Amino acid sequence: MAAIIPLPQAARLAQDAPLDRLVQLVAADMAAVNQTIVQRMESRVTLIPKLAGHIIAAGGKRLRPLLTLAAASLCGYQGQRHRKLAACVEFIHTATLIHDDVVDASDLRRGSPSANALFGNEASVLVGDFLFSRAFELMVEDGSIDVLRVLSRASAVIAEGEVLQLSTTHDSTTSEQAYLEVVRAKTAELFAAACRIGAIVAGRPASEEEALRTFGLNLGIAFQIVDDVLDYSAEQARLGKTVGDDFREGKMTLPVILAIHRGSEAERAFWKRVMDDSAMREGDLSHAQDLMRRHHTLRDAMDRARHYGAIAKDALGLFSDNPVKQAFLDIVDFTIAREF
Amino acid sequence: MAAIIPLPQAARLAQDAPLDRLVQLVAADMAAVNQTIVQRMESRVTLIPKLAGHIIAAGGKRLRPLLTLAAASLCGYQGQRHRKLAACVEFIHTATLIHDDVVDASDLRRGSPSANALFGNEASVLVGDFLFSRAFELMVEDGSIDVLRVLSRASAVIAEGEVLQLSTTHDSTTSEQAYLEVVRAKTAELFAAACRIGAIVAGRPASEEEALRTFGLNLGIAFQIVDDVLDYSAEQARLGKTVGDDFREGKMTLPVILAIHRGSEAERAFWKRVMDDSAMREGDLSHAQDLMRRHHTLRDAMDRARHYGAIAKDALGLFSDNPVKQAFLDIVDFTIAREF
Repeated sequence: MAAIIPLPQAARLAQDAPLDRLVQLVAADMAAVNQTIVQRMESRVTLIPKLAGHIIAAGGKRLRPLLTLAAASLCGYQGQRHRKLAACVEFIHTATLIHDDVVDASDLRRGSPSANALFGNEASVLVGDFLFSRAFELMVEDGSIDVLRVLSRASAVIAEGEVLQLSTTHDSTTSEQAYLEVVRAKTAELFAAACRIGAIVAGRPASEEEALRTFGLNLGIAFQIVDDVLDYSAEQARLGKTVGDDFREGKMTLPVILAIHRGSEAERAFWKRVMDDSAMREGDLSHAQDLMRRHHTLRDAMDRARHYGAIAKDALGLFSDNPVKQAFLDIVDFTIAREF
Repeated sequence: MAAIIPLPQAARLAQDAPLDRLVQLVAADMAAVNQTIVQRMESRVTLIPKLAGHIIAAGGKRLRPLLTLAAASLCGYQGQRHRKLAACVEFIHTATLIHDDVVDASDLRRGSPSANALFGNEASVLVGDFLFSRAFELMVEDGSIDVLRVLSRASAVIAEGEVLQLSTTHDSTTSEQAYLEVVRAKTAELFAAACRIGAIVAGRPASEEEALRTFGLNLGIAFQIVDDVLDYSAEQARLGKTVGDDFREGKMTLPVILAIHRGSEAERAFWKRVMDDSAMREGDLSHAQDLMRRHHTLRDAMDRARHYGAIAKDALGLFSDNPVKQAFLDIVDFTIAREF
């Protein structure tokens, strides 16, 4: 499992290449998206661009808008509508990130202080609302009711997924199925919508829209599983990133769920104490990581991620071979092999 | 000033009559709206209808959806689209209420425990997001890009207004103009949108849409000023409602702003201490109320409210006389004379 075994520098660079290729293929579009993002988070209320800018400038991979741009390109789209819609997707994602940090009371986001830590929960709730509304304004400017349908539905499902996650948090009896339902709703649905929009603006037939939806949904599930594995990975620690955030928050992710399913009575009592009762002690995280190693749960969670990645790749079968399609296929590998 | 002088029971009943008349005129529509609200806040994630239902069942006056229904009726609309859109308006309003309570860390909402007090801030943030997304889903089902434009814009302006309010909170130098800008954005814009939608579904000319927008905007400003006055009114206390919530939260509302503008140096030092520094002591609220009485700021704030009420009424000049128009005019008087 690449993600937890230290790699030599060259291997890590090669591993990032697929995303770079995709970024290069849509570079002009992405520059326009970034410009739209900066312009449209403006407000005479200066705290709004300040707070939103903090999150958006922090970077991240811009994976979701990239998917919209690339999907449109894969569908042969020649216009510019996809740029504004890609910005919408990023706004929706950013709004949910900001609200998530409030919900989780997180102090850090991508290694920098989170918006709520810097600006307070109050402003974070409201600026999230603003970005969300702004996303809908951008969609309305585009004018496609089909796009509006896809993204308003996705937004409602994301919120449902987040609430569902709340109810599984600190519940060590959470099933793998319940976990998958959370992941699908809170993460994969927006990946699916981001991809679908590319086919919609290009006016492609339903079969291509559906193929891209399938691709995005399964890529999104793989992405989230890998994220959840990385939260326990030794490699993360080596890169100076925090490890165990999910553990401290009592989040029931796949590596934990598998460890509970496979554990002895004594081990389950341990998981119950740390997850349900939040009764953490010094050394609990390393013990949890030991149990995961013993039951190979990180490795097997990565196998599950590869399964969804395979579905995503197969969904692209109906598109003819070209550099964008190849980059799309590579992005699945990148998602699974990434270290951040 | 009616709002702070105890009224005999009969007078109070007569005072409620205008709203009742309007409610009766659109009773069948309102029943359908309530049904839509209950149906569409459903989710397989049971915490969502539980939390949303708590707020929606708590009642309130359903003033905003009532405005949409009545505006459509005033425009001679015969269809049913306004019912779903009125539910959208109430969802957007409810979402902002839920988020407001998180932002203000309120324990009470309309005399009952607030959603955040009962279900936690986490769930409140997310269920607010859900209702907001659901509102957009309902609009998309309706399919009018004009309605979507009006409500997505209103939603962004509301969020801006709330952030603006945050920056004026605990700032005793806030101007009346800044206050008005907050009120317009956080409250009046949704009243305006609720009314406009009535003209849009009825397919009426721009002049009528604009008249209803003007009506709603100014009614909304009057409504919020009265709300802010009621927070300090003796009558509220007599009715068993809490008084001084805004004071304790350091909110810069019109009664306070006028008292500061009209106060002596010593009085301003008092306001600075209680509003800016949140350094409240026993007796500060009564002292604040004394200062408001001395400078007639509640009375004069009500005069300001009447000014906006008058603009609202005049805006209806181009509609011919009929019971709905009369009820619309009466609602302005109700808004200003109300005690709750």
